[in-house]
Amino acid sequence: MTEKQTALIIIDMINDFQFKHGEVLAKKALKMTTSINLIRNQFHQHKLPVIYINDHYQLWKADIEKIMAYCNNPISSPIIQTIRPSSDDYFLIKPKHSAFYGTALNTLLNQLAIDKLIMVGLAGNICVLFSANDAYMREYKLHIPANCIASNDDHDNENALIMMKDVLKANIDPLP
Amino acid sequence: MTEKQTALIIIDMINDFQFKHGEVLAKKALKMTTSINLIRNQFHQHKLPVIYINDHYQLWKADIEKIMAYCNNPISSPIIQTIRPSSDDYFLIKPKHSAFYGTALNTLLNQLAIDKLIMVGLAGNICVLFSANDAYMREYKLHIPANCIASNDDHDNENALIMMKDVLKANIDPLP
Amino acid sequence: MTEKQTALIIIDMINDFQFKHGEVLAKKALKMTTSINLIRNQFHQHKLPVIYINDHYQLWKADIEKIMAYCNNPISSPIIQTIRPSSDDYFLIKPKHSAFYGTALNTLLNQLAIDKLIMVGLAGNICVLFSANDAYMREYKLHIPANCIASNDDHDNENALIMMKDVLKANIDPLP
Amino acid sequence: MTEKQTALIIIDMINDFQFKHGEVLAKKALKMTTSINLIRNQFHQHKLPVIYINDHYQLWKADIEKIMAYCNNPISSPIIQTIRPSSDDYFLIKPKHSAFYGTALNTLLNQLAIDKLIMVGLAGNICVLFSANDAYMREYKLHIPANCIASNDDHDNENALIMMKDVLKANIDPLP
Repeated sequence: MTEKQTALIIIDMINDFQFKHGEVLAKKALKMTTSINLIRNQFHQHKLPVIYINDHYQLWKADIEKIMAYCNNPISSPIIQTIRPSSDDYFLIKPKHSAFYGTALNTLLNQLAIDKLIMVGLAGNICVLFSANDAYMREYKLHIPANCIASNDDHDNENALIMMKDVLKANIDPLP
Repeated sequence: MTEKQTALIIIDMINDFQFKHGEVLAKKALKMTTSINLIRNQFHQHKLPVIYINDHYQLWKADIEKIMAYCNNPISSPIIQTIRPSSDDYFLIKPKHSAFYGTALNTLLNQLAIDKLIMVGLAGNICVLFSANDAYMREYKLHIPANCIASNDDHDNENALIMMKDVLKANIDPLP
Repeated sequence: MTEKQTALIIIDMINDFQFKHGEVLAKKALKMTTSINLIRNQFHQHKLPVIYINDHYQLWKADIEKIMAYCNNPISSPIIQTIRPSSDDYFLIKPKHSAFYGTALNTLLNQLAIDKLIMVGLAGNICVLFSANDAYMREYKLHIPANCIASNDDHDNENALIMMKDVLKANIDPLP
Repeated sequence: MTEKQTALIIIDMINDFQFKHGEVLAKKALKMTTSINLIRNQFHQHKLPVIYINDHYQLWKADIEKIMAYCNNPISSPIIQTIRPSSDDYFLIKPKHSAFYGTALNTLLNQLAIDKLIMVGLAGNICVLFSANDAYMREYKLHIPANCIASNDDHDNENALIMMKDVLKANIDPLP
């Protein structure tokens, strides 16, 4: 039997922010990159897996460079530059909101013998929440640091965090 | 309601052939590329979707260039050069044998209003058969042209075709 | 092509209410049965499908009688008597919160040519919300009547409804 | 970490045999019941899980008694009488060929900490093979005793066994 370990899941941070309130969300996202990168560095140091899972922007292509190029614009550029995956990070695309729906994520996590996830990213009340629900049904332990998710509306973000804490038994303490 | 249409599914043709009998299979694969590309051209002309779905070679990365670079070797190179996806073709990675398991394929097919699949590729008795089984359970009509799938062992390939025809009600007439 | 139609999905109404605040939720559930049964009667009259999907209470058995017997107690009995499935209603068990996770629901809905769901039941902020999220990712139109879902806490129920309306584009108008 | 263990999976043995060659298959099925029940007794003695997974015969109902009643006829009756689930056995319905597709099986196996399956039942080249493929993609070890699966055509059964052995790395030694 393998010792179980933790993976860092980074959701939809490669983003074009081309939607209502996108600029507001981008500002919050940029602020979060510092904390997320600190966590990411720790994962790299301990050789723990970092997994980006991202919308494909109707490209339906497993092509990370095309996705980053498509998303690049004055609003997103500082975020993408800061948070872009290192060559050792995993990168998967997802067709819908949840990181588990129609993706290889669960197979990858099994193969890596992961039983705990730190989930960060956007939007807290949509894709992160859907992903957290699906993780919970698959019996992963969850840590969703309150300072590493953001939503268009702060009240919605707060509600999502309460739901993660109460229903999904997630730890929501800020990191690092 | 949308008129339903057909998609071409190309399985594991971006391949390194680094396995037992890999060289034998590569020879069969190279021969098939002519027929597959003729079908592909017809799909391009009619603006019908062409979807590559491929092993990720333990890269777990949605990175088509990295996968092709990884697979490239003297045995695979002539095949990859001939069959490599055009810029308008879809490209998805799969974590296991079936094209539907842990992938966005079903979501993509729904979005494209597809109800019939032409399936081609490798290996006929493994990944193509697993994918065809899963397509059948999801109620797609199947055409698996006998001249466009290949297996290490021809007898196994023949058995897979019989199974597709008898159990999955697939059309196995050669194309084009 | 088949004309698409609507199904009624009744979630976790066969319930033992043996949990914190269970008695409070049972009172709300009992009140809802009148409205749910009015909708159910309309579905029966129009020969539209009514699908119960329910927790299995660790029986892991496709045995509707055993599940109803297990759930039966002074608190649940008036609800179960009122809402119990008719012989023509479908009845599926689910292993986790979402009605789609590890169940035959999606296959059944495809077979019945359903593209719209009316979802009712318990608990609004947990199993109904998880199910609604999964229905939305599978591209069903949703009507979740505000008077036909309930949660332990009314504020949580309200939040769930807002999320269904804003994120899942659900109609939440009361019925009938 | 929990010690991993083995489950016995009994596929489609509750069967009406109302299909082409059904009577032939029923004869083979009846013969197999002796071996399957010997294995089942051992599982009961060691308190290991026995899981029936079965077609629902268009009832779409989690109702084991209705399914057995529906299937009961002069051909099936001796088989159903011999092999019917004990009160402690699990019983799940499946909407399609594979025991994993649209069912709670994987969730149940995770909960029971199972990593190895003994698979028996009908038909060897269809539902058992589809189920075995899906089990293999989910990384279960497989034992499919050659004397405990049967298909309409013995040659097809033999081919399925070879495929399970060669592709799925299954042990196919007879039991007990």
